[in-house]
Amino acid sequence: MAKGITKRAEDYSRWYLDVVAAAELAEHSPVKGCMVIKPNGYALWEKIQATLDKMFKDTGHVNAYFPLFIPESFLKKEAEHVEGFAPECAVVTHGGGKKLEEPMVIRPTSETIIWSTYKKWIQSYRDLPILINQWANVVRWEMRTRLFLRTTEFLWQEGHTAHATAEEAEQETMQMINVYRRFAEEYLAAPVFVGVKTESEKFAGAVRTYSIEAMMQDGKALQSGTSHNLGQNFAKAFDVTFQDENGKLDYVWATSWGVSTRLIGALIMIHSDDNGLVIPPRLAPLQVVVVPIWRSDEEKQKLLSHVEKITGDWKDRFSFKVDDRDNYRPGWKFNEWEKRGVPIRIEIGPKDLENDQVVVVRRDTGEKSFIPQGQLVELLPRLLDQIQQDLYDRAKKMREENTFYADDWNSFVKRIDDPGGFYWLHWCGSDACEAQLAEQTKATIRLIPFDGEKESGKCVLCGADSDRRVLVAKSY
Amino acid sequence: MAKGITKRAEDYSRWYLDVVAAAELAEHSPVKGCMVIKPNGYALWEKIQATLDKMFKDTGHVNAYFPLFIPESFLKKEAEHVEGFAPECAVVTHGGGKKLEEPMVIRPTSETIIWSTYKKWIQSYRDLPILINQWANVVRWEMRTRLFLRTTEFLWQEGHTAHATAEEAEQETMQMINVYRRFAEEYLAAPVFVGVKTESEKFAGAVRTYSIEAMMQDGKALQSGTSHNLGQNFAKAFDVTFQDENGKLDYVWATSWGVSTRLIGALIMIHSDDNGLVIPPRLAPLQVVVVPIWRSDEEKQKLLSHVEKITGDWKDRFSFKVDDRDNYRPGWKFNEWEKRGVPIRIEIGPKDLENDQVVVVRRDTGEKSFIPQGQLVELLPRLLDQIQQDLYDRAKKMREENTFYADDWNSFVKRIDDPGGFYWLHWCGSDACEAQLAEQTKATIRLIPFDGEKESGKCVLCGADSDRRVLVAKSY
Repeated sequence: MAKGITKRAEDYSRWYLDVVAAAELAEHSPVKGCMVIKPNGYALWEKIQATLDKMFKDTGHVNAYFPLFIPESFLKKEAEHVEGFAPECAVVTHGGGKKLEEPMVIRPTSETIIWSTYKKWIQSYRDLPILINQWANVVRWEMRTRLFLRTTEFLWQEGHTAHATAEEAEQETMQMINVYRRFAEEYLAAPVFVGVKTESEKFAGAVRTYSIEAMMQDGKALQSGTSHNLGQNFAKAFDVTFQDENGKLDYVWATSWGVSTRLIGALIMIHSDDNGLVIPPRLAPLQVVVVPIWRSDEEKQKLLSHVEKITGDWKDRFSFKVDDRDNYRPGWKFNEWEKRGVPIRIEIGPKDLENDQVVVVRRDTGEKSFIPQGQLVELLPRLLDQIQQDLYDRAKKMREENTFYADDWNSFVKRIDDPGGFYWLHWCGSDACEAQLAEQTKATIRLIPFDGEKESGKCVLCGADSDRRVLVAKSY
Repeated sequence: MAKGITKRAEDYSRWYLDVVAAAELAEHSPVKGCMVIKPNGYALWEKIQATLDKMFKDTGHVNAYFPLFIPESFLKKEAEHVEGFAPECAVVTHGGGKKLEEPMVIRPTSETIIWSTYKKWIQSYRDLPILINQWANVVRWEMRTRLFLRTTEFLWQEGHTAHATAEEAEQETMQMINVYRRFAEEYLAAPVFVGVKTESEKFAGAVRTYSIEAMMQDGKALQSGTSHNLGQNFAKAFDVTFQDENGKLDYVWATSWGVSTRLIGALIMIHSDDNGLVIPPRLAPLQVVVVPIWRSDEEKQKLLSHVEKITGDWKDRFSFKVDDRDNYRPGWKFNEWEKRGVPIRIEIGPKDLENDQVVVVRRDTGEKSFIPQGQLVELLPRLLDQIQQDLYDRAKKMREENTFYADDWNSFVKRIDDPGGFYWLHWCGSDACEAQLAEQTKATIRLIPFDGEKESGKCVLCGADSDRRVLVAKSY
């Protein structure tokens, strides 16, 4: 066992917090429910941000910024929305030494402040579509918090788009859940299920919510991104209408979509191991670390100048660092970079210098190979790709081994606690059965799959007819 | 006059707001004192952010994120700090439907929350230095607001560093004001004066505040960036000590430094003209716009496919866009891109196609030239550099023409309102004279220059001895 990291098999929750601490990603702040994102954690967020930001811009979106404060009256304009969010709000009652005439909430999400603004921007179909994203902090009061997964304040992005037709809004909602799916698969190395949330689990104020759900190593689900078709709900609440090409007035169609610092929690819980953090290479702020091993100053100088030569043409190919610190021993350094999840470690000592080789160690498998130095510049990018792919394949295998079909209520109830995992169940579609499921097992319907095959069956709860299976799991 | 833009000479304040509106940079939000930063304005902020972020990282800093909320008791731990900021705070009194045990303020700046955290991170000299920056929103309650220049909520970066010695902290403070100076000069194309703030103008809780001050076109000063040597003030307030190499315990030395979305206000007020926004090329999200001019569909197709050829090798050299919109006429487009401040406009019509040339128009001077198409790829980057340099030179000339030496109180008082501008005055160094200056003229001491030559003189107010001149101006 790595020093200070509990084994997953022993206590999974504790392991998670140990990994976060060992990699110095974040810590609890003196403010209840809020976290301090430490430089290593923030560097991960910067990689996630840069990647997603490019994907958003490539699909025609631009960034903007709307106020942190929302007048309480705005929140109340959409009935479902206020019901969902009011209980979680932080409320500002005083400003500049005076009591405010109207209290303001700190944004838990920005639909209301944004649609009150879009009202000014939209008159005609020529003003549409509006394709805006915002990177921001939001606040949702939480009683039980967990670093990255659930905190009172968190960082996120929220897209808010406005369209002339229901079809366009639906296309956008679908496009963005697919952007998230692609980000999860290609960067986070996380296989995800994609589908529709049930009525009771959808976003407060949405017509339909699409979600990507990933499996953590303890078999629980993590909702990792959502895209909402808001229909005309917010346009109606804020009276946002437009004139179409024929001069007819109609309410504007809306979507919103977001992912948050929660993704860092997903990354940790999908890939990390008992030795600490494992980062998929495409999201690793540092991809390769070189640890030279010397016993004398003379050896050190010789090694470092040689390493400078080897690494001379690495610069624009991948990110790397040479750990030439004097005050730590090599073994300590190996352990340190392992805990931090750097995908590839390279060890080079005086013997290796003679033999024109280095030792290359994969973080994900621990596998060591001796590699001729001249091959490194070609091999390392390929190896990074390989690690990325292997992480995805391993996560997918894990998910496959822990996803089950269940047709019998009693055996499902027995299994949902141990071994846990994902279950495809038949469900009749009623709120009553959904509520009973949650009450009796603490598992929930994660989604109704887009591409689920039609299959006749009986609801595992009430026995009524069902025409497709839904995904059920415990979740974070 | 450009449609909708008041002339500077007529009403400078109104002109400023007109430029902001015409370029669609920002607007007032429904929340008093807060602004909506629109996509064009946010794109400018993204350029500023990316540029500064690289400069910070190149000088060894990393990013992190600390909570939005600060317990009221934290703010009170540093006496000057609370006195300075408490009157400007927004206060959260309720969260999750309950009254909070202790109210929390929205960060007006993060020294207190960060130093309460550094206490946990620092034990030994080995833990130092800490070189952290944060990109965040902050809130300072303002009665009279102006877009970008003064708003209740604004976006900024705040660096917070911790050091083992007073000398190191001083070096850092100085390094960062020089980073800001360099950013102002090389990117913002803004000549700035650099120096020390007086005791009454320094940051609440600092030992010394360094500032860069730029001149706007109305002759007023805008404080565009500050760097604070905090001494051991916050370490003492939060009891942050460290053991030095000899085992001796001492308080940690601190700095903080920041710039904000105010810089966008500076950019507008330094360079823009009666036709709208002018953006220095190095900060322009869009550097070159091509407007093809056609009268028939056939001409359009021919032109567009030709433009595609011309622009084929521009991609990694500068940012550009071809405005091929059907529903707007060329004249409207010229005006549109002018208002938005795009540095170079290229016009190309069927005649130009025949003559193998284009019309290149500089936004800053309005100068038009006919350029052979084959020369564009080489010429445009040079022209962008030239415009950048010319904007700087013009701003510097403007500043020189409006900076005066004054030795007589009465003539200074007469001139500070009209023509206004910057004044180098002798000042005895007393709080009393400084207060009198502000009271009688509404001008303030902007800074005591670092590199001001020693010069014997008499305080313009009381006649006492003075050994150097200070910079005095009205300011935003």
